Amino acid sequence: MPTPDPLSTTFAALADPTRRAILARLVAGECSVTELAQPFKMSMPAVSKHLRVLERARLIVRRRDAQWRRCRIDAGPLKDVANWAERYRHLWEARFDRLDKYLEELQTKEKSHARKKRRQ
Amino acid sequence: MPTPDPLSTTFAALADPTRRAILARLVAGECSVTELAQPFKMSMPAVSKHLRVLERARLIVRRRDAQWRRCRIDAGPLKDVANWAERYRHLWEARFDRLDKYLEELQTKEKSHARKKRRQ
Repeated sequence: MPTPDPLSTTFAALADPTRRAILARLVAGECSVTELAQPFKMSMPAVSKHLRVLERARLIVRRRDAQWRRCRIDAGPLKDVANWAERYRHLWEARFDRLDKYLEELQTKEKSHARKKRRQ
Repeated sequence: MPTPDPLSTTFAALADPTRRAILARLVAGECSVTELAQPFKMSMPAVSKHLRVLERARLIVRRRDAQWRRCRIDAGPLKDVANWAERYRHLWEARFDRLDKYLEELQTKEKSHARKKRRQ
């Protein structure tokens, strides 16, 4: 298997709710692997496996601090994700514009219908 | 295996450069599966497999038009990706602010060093 490109590696790492929850936890600051594992009903090896995936994707950095292994988030690859998705913004905005227009048309129709009813 | 959550399904679908290239192609407008397959040196079954993954993730919609199968992009899930990544914006902006500050400090040091040299 060829090595995936960085963006594919980032997306693959983010395709798991536990790994996204770990990143969300790390926004509050660096913490130990034990602290990170606490909210998850998961074995330490399972948590460590998720951390390895995040580390390979450069989404976290691990360092040894005395007997602790501490992790911190690296948001660099998330910036690339945001930049990539932004290229499609005009598409979803156009979709909401069309929905707005449709709702406006519905309201206009309803008002004219109510006016006709009052006249009868 | 439990069904993955929608955001995990989206990220998994995006974790492939061919699938991202298919989405980029569809920004220009709806097209047939044959047209979509052309730029890729890939068998039709391989392209079809990628399209199935994109369809399951609701990133594309396929419809039959006479003998053709036509595809269009649905940017809805990409909006969710952008919204998710945006939550981390303050982190990467802080990182660039720190880098800016560091470069400013370097420039100030260099200028004061050059001044001292001129005085000697």
